[in-house]
Amino acid sequence: MSATSYPLLESIHDPADLRRLSRADLKLLAGELRAFVLESVSRTGGHLSSNLGTVELTIALHAVFHTPEDRLVWDVGHQTYPHKILTGRRERMDSLRQLGGLSGFPQRAESEYDTFGTAHSSTSISAALGMALAARQQGLERHCVAIIGDGAMTAGMAFEALNNAGVADANLLVVLNDNDMSISPPVGALNRYLAQLMSGNFYTRARDVGKNVLKNVPPLLELAKRLEQQAKGMVVPATMFEQFGFNYIGPIDGHDLDSLIPTLENIRGLKGPQFLHVVTKKGQGYKLAEADPVAYHGPGKFDPKIGLVKPATPPKQTFTQVFGQWLCDMAAQDPRLVGITPAMREGSGMVEFERRFPGRYYDVGIAEQHAVTFAAGMACEGVKPVLAIYSTFLQRGYDQLIHDVALQNLPVVFALDRAGLVGADGATHAGAYDIPFIRCIPNMAIACPADERECRQLLTTAYEQNHPVAVRYPRGSGVGAAPLSSLEGLPYGRGELRREGRRIAILAFGTLLYPALAAAEQLDATVVNMRWAKPLDTELLLRVAQTHEALVTVEEGVILGGAGSAVGEALNAAGVSLPVLQLGLPDAFIEHGDPARLLALQGLDAHGMVRSIEARFGRSQSAQRGRAAA
Amino acid sequence: MSATSYPLLESIHDPADLRRLSRADLKLLAGELRAFVLESVSRTGGHLSSNLGTVELTIALHAVFHTPEDRLVWDVGHQTYPHKILTGRRERMDSLRQLGGLSGFPQRAESEYDTFGTAHSSTSISAALGMALAARQQGLERHCVAIIGDGAMTAGMAFEALNNAGVADANLLVVLNDNDMSISPPVGALNRYLAQLMSGNFYTRARDVGKNVLKNVPPLLELAKRLEQQAKGMVVPATMFEQFGFNYIGPIDGHDLDSLIPTLENIRGLKGPQFLHVVTKKGQGYKLAEADPVAYHGPGKFDPKIGLVKPATPPKQTFTQVFGQWLCDMAAQDPRLVGITPAMREGSGMVEFERRFPGRYYDVGIAEQHAVTFAAGMACEGVKPVLAIYSTFLQRGYDQLIHDVALQNLPVVFALDRAGLVGADGATHAGAYDIPFIRCIPNMAIACPADERECRQLLTTAYEQNHPVAVRYPRGSGVGAAPLSSLEGLPYGRGELRREGRRIAILAFGTLLYPALAAAEQLDATVVNMRWAKPLDTELLLRVAQTHEALVTVEEGVILGGAGSAVGEALNAAGVSLPVLQLGLPDAFIEHGDPARLLALQGLDAHGMVRSIEARFGRSQSAQRGRAAA
Repeated sequence: MSATSYPLLESIHDPADLRRLSRADLKLLAGELRAFVLESVSRTGGHLSSNLGTVELTIALHAVFHTPEDRLVWDVGHQTYPHKILTGRRERMDSLRQLGGLSGFPQRAESEYDTFGTAHSSTSISAALGMALAARQQGLERHCVAIIGDGAMTAGMAFEALNNAGVADANLLVVLNDNDMSISPPVGALNRYLAQLMSGNFYTRARDVGKNVLKNVPPLLELAKRLEQQAKGMVVPATMFEQFGFNYIGPIDGHDLDSLIPTLENIRGLKGPQFLHVVTKKGQGYKLAEADPVAYHGPGKFDPKIGLVKPATPPKQTFTQVFGQWLCDMAAQDPRLVGITPAMREGSGMVEFERRFPGRYYDVGIAEQHAVTFAAGMACEGVKPVLAIYSTFLQRGYDQLIHDVALQNLPVVFALDRAGLVGADGATHAGAYDIPFIRCIPNMAIACPADERECRQLLTTAYEQNHPVAVRYPRGSGVGAAPLSSLEGLPYGRGELRREGRRIAILAFGTLLYPALAAAEQLDATVVNMRWAKPLDTELLLRVAQTHEALVTVEEGVILGGAGSAVGEALNAAGVSLPVLQLGLPDAFIEHGDPARLLALQGLDAHGMVRSIEARFGRSQSAQRGRAAA
Repeated sequence: MSATSYPLLESIHDPADLRRLSRADLKLLAGELRAFVLESVSRTGGHLSSNLGTVELTIALHAVFHTPEDRLVWDVGHQTYPHKILTGRRERMDSLRQLGGLSGFPQRAESEYDTFGTAHSSTSISAALGMALAARQQGLERHCVAIIGDGAMTAGMAFEALNNAGVADANLLVVLNDNDMSISPPVGALNRYLAQLMSGNFYTRARDVGKNVLKNVPPLLELAKRLEQQAKGMVVPATMFEQFGFNYIGPIDGHDLDSLIPTLENIRGLKGPQFLHVVTKKGQGYKLAEADPVAYHGPGKFDPKIGLVKPATPPKQTFTQVFGQWLCDMAAQDPRLVGITPAMREGSGMVEFERRFPGRYYDVGIAEQHAVTFAAGMACEGVKPVLAIYSTFLQRGYDQLIHDVALQNLPVVFALDRAGLVGADGATHAGAYDIPFIRCIPNMAIACPADERECRQLLTTAYEQNHPVAVRYPRGSGVGAAPLSSLEGLPYGRGELRREGRRIAILAFGTLLYPALAAAEQLDATVVNMRWAKPLDTELLLRVAQTHEALVTVEEGVILGGAGSAVGEALNAAGVSLPVLQLGLPDAFIEHGDPARLLALQGLDAHGMVRSIEARFGRSQSAQRGRAAA
């Protein structure tokens, strides 16, 4: 399979092997590692640009620190393929992000070198500080290192951690991996500030002369101070992190092992919180990715010699695209509409919206808390905000959802992408909890479109309400129900009877309507497309309850507290008792893998639904007849 | 009633009246307003120190800005009594924080001058920025002002908002009300930085000479720059906010109208994001509060001439105190224990713990996200963190709870104070949602102690587990069940039968066990003390379900997705159908008032439970007999 040979890389079974190599060999290793990453990701798909950017940094960190005794915490963690390859997982890279295979993120269960599981942004400084203070408490001389990107630095929790770390007497090193890019283009004052730090001749000169003085730190710092003073166009260079109590070092070239290794060695000898500013290039060493790091952020499989090619047949329309189109159409119709994203322009389908309505597009950075309250502030003033946010990232703005939006009953539309299982990204990104955590909040409503057409319609319905509404839809495409071109909604809080059957009624919330319909064919069951987890269509529910022996609820979300429990509560409130079978995601974290396969494993395909329903309620006579006849 | 007369204050019906006063009269008004605040709070209880500190700032803001057209957003909002008094609510101040009376926080429904409801910290910049950008979109020349304390600035979302605002082309003014105090003593690098800004002779001189040059801003800024250069002991003064893109002005004396008003007038004429650093003193003008602002942060009723007096009979032990004692006792027994608080040392009962175990006490500032992940990092290393956090504030760390603690199944104990209704603080602080939002997370457990004794026992049980557990307990005291002095736990995930009755079984989660027992006496019902919302004691549940005609669940939390729904899910999973009545908090935000009265209004006292149960299931024969005999 392997197109290239990797003699040095294949000799590295763990970082101790790496630490025995000469500097010259480490440079050769970097070349092999970069080639291996490219080849590996081109076969499996996965994150590319960020991993090409961290090759030398990863080698330098493992060369200088005594991992796993010293702790490396990789923020977000999608840049850890080189780390995985160097820590005994090279041969398993072909299983990346597949069921039973390696995770695309660090995982404590996967390796002792993965000291903290990450995936959501900006947790690393908090975790590494906790580890550093635990070490202090235990009397251990351990180094704890957080490696965080410039995009992740904009999230509030990174600042909370810096604020706390700067006064803690801990041996903590924060490495800022500054590649001037989050997934969407960088925004915000911090980014502008970092760009200033590297403007003019400061960075270039520090890099050129740095090598000569790197052996002992004090002269370097002196030099840096002088260079700072010379740099033009900066009000105050390099000091924001010093104001937070850190010893700031950098910026240095993150692709130059001759800068990285001696600098890290010097830092290792320093006490107290250290901040190393490293500059890397996303996609480094692969021209196509360097030229378009966004396209190569998380590609599928491709031929490295050719690069990404447009598929011959256009892929099925995704829910994300349905949202993006709806947003543009509604914005064209209603000048009050504004679109807000916390740094997920591409992922949330807002590229076209930004192009057409730049003045009504707000990318607030990786800042979900702020995004929600910012939307609330706008909604107070008669502007109509639509906040596009992944289900899993709304968890970051949960208090703001309750305290700023729902309590004040402000009309904000939450477009919750990636609801349910998300596939390759795995448990960290699962949008499995939104129904329970939203529906317990007064004034909130949650729509669960069953297909693309309903998604567009329910977004309109949500937008028409004078209170907050979330519309949840899954990653990828649905059954392919073409959206209407009009902007008509569906009745608020109303479901629909989709199939009339006997004995058993299946109440489906969301896209699992379709396997439920298939299951109902086998069972001759009734199927209701409930459409709203809140408010529940209790009128329809009670009518169905009166005419059936049992109910089955189906949702792509956790059972505990979910839409099925809402059905139970409504029955309890109405004083109706009948058997209810709740189908949905179990009370467990579900790892990465193909979404359809994962759903089937949870019994949430048509076959699994039939099996569960028959196991609970027995075979229906018509179903038995049907099978005997077949 | 009034001890003093307030001739000027009584002439102010809205801020327009105030804007007609001369500077000299505004100073007299400040004196009256301060006296009125003191007298008023001494009669009703409420927040005192912070409101005495904002008298002049409030007058100056309303004098300079054209409220309500210009928007004032008060962060946290507990310092808005002067604002309420000046905006037509003076005569209603006697109803403060009482049922049907004025809220202790700004509320949009209460006044058009309350442009944004606040209560949780650090939301103001986001909201004001949203308002400012909405105004820009609407072509309005409106000023939007966020007034935020130095404590609130440590929360991540304030930084997210600064980062976003600094590059937005918005007329936003952030007033930093720097009184060097959150409720607990200030912590963190930012606080140290602010202290530096005021160290040496910088602040004093800026204040002395500032008055002479305040008429036009550019000279002031020039002067400030020169003063900055002269100031000693500061690496880089006053520039952190400039790095964020703000025009920084200050610090100025927040009790001096001759500084405040001209400065604000000048700022009103500037474009783009402005940052005014104002220094105030908590408790200003009331010697007792100045000397001990923590004690006077939120006092009950008192005689202003005497001040706070120790009650003759010690009040009943609170759940907070039970936790504080347990924490000390467990720390004495287990050296691995650490205690973490996000800036709520007093409120969470950790004063004694800090005194006795200073090296194991971590106040991380108002930084709930960081607090949770910091605890996770520590738990990775074999340290045993106990995070004391109000139920309502855990909402701020929800993603971290899922992604960093639960997914990695780390043993962190969450001591959730203020679960359920909280009384005077009202809807913003209600701990009503924790059961649904925690129980939907895999690996999580939630204990609901019924009284003080169980609280201590269940904290021990939680601490003994090797996975995350939350223990939720309400504000104030319970029935007075004295905790044992030992550190023995109760069986994990097990409830207990408390009363054997007939027909109906009441399943109580938490402190409502006691009214449930009283109700059961009247109804001759069975009562089960469930103790755990998760894991549910399904064995006990199913035994009870088999021997009763109907179940009643009782919890101090929202019904939607709550513990009663967990009972429903367990019955569904076991294929058991019987009538269930779910009692708990409704799907509505519940305003401030006396907690016992609020519970009664929701039918959650013994009388209300009897009424609900009889309305649903009819009168029991024995109950009818009992009443006939009585």
